[in-house]
Amino acid sequence: MDFIKKPMDIENRSMEIIAPYIKDYHLDEKSAKVYSRLIHASGDPGYAPYIRISDGAIEAVEDALKKGADIYTDVEMVRTGINKKKLASFGGEAHCLIADPDIATVAKKDGITRSMAAMRSFGHDMDGAIVAIGNAPTALFEVIRLIKEEGIRPAAVIGIPVGFVGAADSKQALTENGIIPFITVLGTKGGSPIAASAVNAIMYIIDNSR
Amino acid sequence: MDFIKKPMDIENRSMEIIAPYIKDYHLDEKSAKVYSRLIHASGDPGYAPYIRISDGAIEAVEDALKKGADIYTDVEMVRTGINKKKLASFGGEAHCLIADPDIATVAKKDGITRSMAAMRSFGHDMDGAIVAIGNAPTALFEVIRLIKEEGIRPAAVIGIPVGFVGAADSKQALTENGIIPFITVLGTKGGSPIAASAVNAIMYIIDNSR
Repeated sequence: MDFIKKPMDIENRSMEIIAPYIKDYHLDEKSAKVYSRLIHASGDPGYAPYIRISDGAIEAVEDALKKGADIYTDVEMVRTGINKKKLASFGGEAHCLIADPDIATVAKKDGITRSMAAMRSFGHDMDGAIVAIGNAPTALFEVIRLIKEEGIRPAAVIGIPVGFVGAADSKQALTENGIIPFITVLGTKGGSPIAASAVNAIMYIIDNSR
Repeated sequence: MDFIKKPMDIENRSMEIIAPYIKDYHLDEKSAKVYSRLIHASGDPGYAPYIRISDGAIEAVEDALKKGADIYTDVEMVRTGINKKKLASFGGEAHCLIADPDIATVAKKDGITRSMAAMRSFGHDMDGAIVAIGNAPTALFEVIRLIKEEGIRPAAVIGIPVGFVGAADSKQALTENGIIPFITVLGTKGGSPIAASAVNAIMYIIDNSR
């Protein structure tokens, strides 16, 4: 079996293959890198027309990360997918509370999802930080509510939950929040590796500009 | 914002929405559950025509899990996505070596990916176990080589790596291995949550039949 085995060769070849799928979008260099990473993580060029990056969102994530901002995730898979060694090199940490027994208790008592209870409990710790949601529409809806009703102010929200119940609506609501810069993918597709890949893409953008 | 917040309601509604997308495939009940979970995890009904489950593969995974088989994964995200509490209830554990410093050393020395080195180092520990690959085509190619050339005999391989370099070829090779039962998704799409969801689907099938 003959196949490419060197990580950097795989990476470079992958980006070459993806390039034609995004060329018609006339993206600036940073946006092209984020688009490429999302398509790379999903294996799905069909993501391209649904990706939405609000004006200044990449720069907002960059600035926050450079200041050592932490990242708050809805599920452990997003935290796992984030390059935490790289994040630590900027001074940041990734947090997730979904497996916390207290969160499970609150969720059960209130009849809500654990990821929704987890985002609520982060509260103002998310001010100035990055929020990265890759699984639960309920978590994204709750973050939007916290922004609108409780004045919580993350630096940016990377909101790419997946599925057929609420995901498309929650992502549409994110694009209409009017307050916080965002990166998302409209529709039902998404997931933890996709959200994590957006974070990683921007960390690599910072690295390449140093 | 009005949306469904109860986990079981979300789950049930999601499965209802997915059902029409798979009805033309005339699947048996267990296969329908696996198809539904893969589509649920990706948010992508476009998976349906590319899913391949070899004859007896679901039963092979069920039998192994019931005997307390362990699961060997290529990356931490697959291990994270597997319901490990459920797995432990059958007596199994999930293993991943990609973050092991010794594996990194071997990978660097041999000019191969870490996930490939990790699968190689599992060796005969994989006999009778489940292999679940959700990221690296190189890891799946290596598992196929271990099966064909070194007589390693997992109970089944869930091989759903993602991407544009090797993923489609590695999954095609899995369907043609001729020895081990498999679950896969042809083409470039796939990923850690997809591989983990196949494992979880089968654990829930066992639960529902108890």
